[in-house]
Amino acid sequence: MEPEETLDPTDWESLRILGHKMLDDMLNHLRDIRKQPVWQPIPMKVKSKFKVPLPKEGQDRETVYREFIENILPYPLGNIHPRFWGWVVGTGTPFGMLAEMLAATMNPNVVGGEHIANYVEEQVIEWTKEMLGYDPNASGIIVSGASMANFIGLTVARNTKTDYNVIEEGMRAGKKDLLIYGSTEIHGSIDKAIQLLGLGTKSLRKIPVNENFEIQIEKLRESIEADIQSGHKPICIIGNAGTVNTGAIDDLNLLAEIAKEYNLWFHLDAAFGIWCKLSTISHKLVEGIEKADSIAFDYHKWMYINYEAGCVLVKNKEEHLNAFNFSADYATHHERGTSSGDIWYDYYGIQLSRGFRALKIWMSIKENGSEKYGRLIEQNIQQARYLTNLIGIEQKLEILAPTKTNIVNFRYNNGTTDLDTLNKLNKEILFQLQEKGIAVPSNTMLNGNFAIRVAIVNHRSRKEDFELLINSILDIAQSLEKKVII
Amino acid sequence: MEPEETLDPTDWESLRILGHKMLDDMLNHLRDIRKQPVWQPIPMKVKSKFKVPLPKEGQDRETVYREFIENILPYPLGNIHPRFWGWVVGTGTPFGMLAEMLAATMNPNVVGGEHIANYVEEQVIEWTKEMLGYDPNASGIIVSGASMANFIGLTVARNTKTDYNVIEEGMRAGKKDLLIYGSTEIHGSIDKAIQLLGLGTKSLRKIPVNENFEIQIEKLRESIEADIQSGHKPICIIGNAGTVNTGAIDDLNLLAEIAKEYNLWFHLDAAFGIWCKLSTISHKLVEGIEKADSIAFDYHKWMYINYEAGCVLVKNKEEHLNAFNFSADYATHHERGTSSGDIWYDYYGIQLSRGFRALKIWMSIKENGSEKYGRLIEQNIQQARYLTNLIGIEQKLEILAPTKTNIVNFRYNNGTTDLDTLNKLNKEILFQLQEKGIAVPSNTMLNGNFAIRVAIVNHRSRKEDFELLINSILDIAQSLEKKVII
Repeated sequence: MEPEETLDPTDWESLRILGHKMLDDMLNHLRDIRKQPVWQPIPMKVKSKFKVPLPKEGQDRETVYREFIENILPYPLGNIHPRFWGWVVGTGTPFGMLAEMLAATMNPNVVGGEHIANYVEEQVIEWTKEMLGYDPNASGIIVSGASMANFIGLTVARNTKTDYNVIEEGMRAGKKDLLIYGSTEIHGSIDKAIQLLGLGTKSLRKIPVNENFEIQIEKLRESIEADIQSGHKPICIIGNAGTVNTGAIDDLNLLAEIAKEYNLWFHLDAAFGIWCKLSTISHKLVEGIEKADSIAFDYHKWMYINYEAGCVLVKNKEEHLNAFNFSADYATHHERGTSSGDIWYDYYGIQLSRGFRALKIWMSIKENGSEKYGRLIEQNIQQARYLTNLIGIEQKLEILAPTKTNIVNFRYNNGTTDLDTLNKLNKEILFQLQEKGIAVPSNTMLNGNFAIRVAIVNHRSRKEDFELLINSILDIAQSLEKKVII
Repeated sequence: MEPEETLDPTDWESLRILGHKMLDDMLNHLRDIRKQPVWQPIPMKVKSKFKVPLPKEGQDRETVYREFIENILPYPLGNIHPRFWGWVVGTGTPFGMLAEMLAATMNPNVVGGEHIANYVEEQVIEWTKEMLGYDPNASGIIVSGASMANFIGLTVARNTKTDYNVIEEGMRAGKKDLLIYGSTEIHGSIDKAIQLLGLGTKSLRKIPVNENFEIQIEKLRESIEADIQSGHKPICIIGNAGTVNTGAIDDLNLLAEIAKEYNLWFHLDAAFGIWCKLSTISHKLVEGIEKADSIAFDYHKWMYINYEAGCVLVKNKEEHLNAFNFSADYATHHERGTSSGDIWYDYYGIQLSRGFRALKIWMSIKENGSEKYGRLIEQNIQQARYLTNLIGIEQKLEILAPTKTNIVNFRYNNGTTDLDTLNKLNKEILFQLQEKGIAVPSNTMLNGNFAIRVAIVNHRSRKEDFELLINSILDIAQSLEKKVII
């Protein structure tokens, strides 16, 4: 055999020099992010750098890094910038970035067994239950995000609420259609989960919302009653704590009551809204979360943790285990050695190999303490109200949905009576805000109206940023109107 | 409103000092990893540090890091060590660790849209198809690992091979049981995927293997024929390219033929075995991979990429899209701005929010070039043969399965006729190897025999490490036998 090769550097010192340069560059980048454009278009020439043939030979690491600096770093999504408020995308933190470096060094497979990463994750789950006031006996697992968390919650719901062995027998063995209920404002990941689970999207009853975009409880009850009458089997109600469109929060206490009355699983999609719980002021908005049988949410949204970090909690640990449990000869658990230990995360979700996502959460919670998160979340809510007030003052700006939490939907309205013209005008304003690198809101459609949508899950935003947003919108609108006149 | 708080440091310079210290520590740790024990038990006192109440107040970052150094870093799984060969767990690299730091700084949500991370991922997928000789028109997505990749592949299989709209109608609308075929050596994630998809694990036909642990083709054909006769609907064959137990590779060309003959989806679970393709010598072992309709595999195993990084490729992009496609008002794609761009990864899998996993793969492939990976993979295969030869030389060691790729199954056998005693003896040897910090193999059961199992996906291992393993096993066995005599 030839002398062995390795992927370690032959010269550790030159890698060390490069590493320290990278770290300095990254810290400077984060420190000075406010001076950068939020977003900018990617030139074709840059895109072409990512349409090249496979490199057969290696390059020196300095060159690879230079390409990163030239062609990657300048063309971000923008979510680490103080004026990014698109979709619901968290900011991350510098200490979280350093934690990711530590996690990537240890590089464990956090599937379970006797090594420390599993205990760190367990600690994070315990702290999370404590933060949310959720059942201390609940089980939980850190996942890629709320889409996966919703999928796991609904899996446990399906497998628990069927009256036969659905794991073995499959959906075709069931005698009735299993039905799931949520509002029309429900997140798309629910539709996805329901089709994947073999329930079929027609099993999802989308109940109308009221003027606050909250589920209409009476309509929900009527729908359940009608379905039972028709011989179907309702199994689950999904509540929203923070809809994506408007940040609306359903009446969770009432949903819990109905779920109890009809013996249904109560799943809560609380991707970002859940964290209102940490605010000494706004925690009342999410009263009732502790009644859910399962909750899906993210740390990488409103806990500002670096991507990826979501979580699902399931109140009844046995039901969670029963929904996923599997075993194999090559994965035997032993009483001693590396494969001892009581924690096996493959029993709680889809993944077998799993990264050390827990470390950045553990280090961040220790860095900041839960109360600071509460203050920052409240700060974002107050910023949403401040922005709502700024909009209220301006005659040509119009709020399109009630601002309940951290999401503001509005538009420029110069009195044009033609809806299509108005929608196009606001779309153009949105494009220009982004293209000029000023700010990145996103948009949604509310009752046919194109809404500029600001979702604030950003610990870098300041009051002045929202003032700049409003002034820029008015400027852009004015220059657009001038153009039309000319 | 009070002056705003932020999670950024007030004093960037002290964070910078800490960051550089962390980086030095991490590089030293990786450089000197060979001097560390592979694994060590976690003292109760250390475990108790992770059973403490939620911190309400923050700590200074230096203290948090000190806790990491004292209580986390010393108690790893062990997979970054040259003598870790348990399960199938990759090593990661120092440059990959630095890439993770860069990715965590940019911290994008790689769901799609017009920002560079999507183009980097697309480049990685193109390079991957090129490395594997797979259809250049195939679609692909980077996922958490092969479990998720298998799940996605089987989702596309199910949704494509049903003759009605299963997304909308669900599994109950089907007229026949849908059946899936694989060998008894199939990975547990397949069982999991099949139950999640509502097919029921009874739909999975586990076909016996031959003495090389490869699927018996004639038995497969008989089973399919019998099922069709019984009125069932076979939809999919799953091939193995590298089973977890022994590294066996099914006859992929024959499986492809049968799939074609019966109009079945051909899914390939090639979590690590796929990378044999890169070796100029061993690529023949995986002949036929290009015929699969979908392939699931990992970069974080035998491409030595830091966790998490898996991939699924689907030959027919339309079928992939049709299986997942969904839309929502808040996620409209536009012709300009941040939400323009042609790449939307939420159309190809479960996740909506997604991290920048692609960067470490892109940087690593550029760092090393594909040919070096080929040499390292071949090196691991040669090391498995070297170990097999060492075992062959020793009278008291016994090979328990043919060494086809990178996995060696063997045991110490002193001629004891009692199987139970022999199994217990080998288990004790395994425990002591781990507890003494010498090496971490794992184990499996092969025809009732407890096998010490060495799976080599480690770029740090050297010939001398396998010599040390053999000598240590003989030493431990000798001292155990002495004890019994006394």
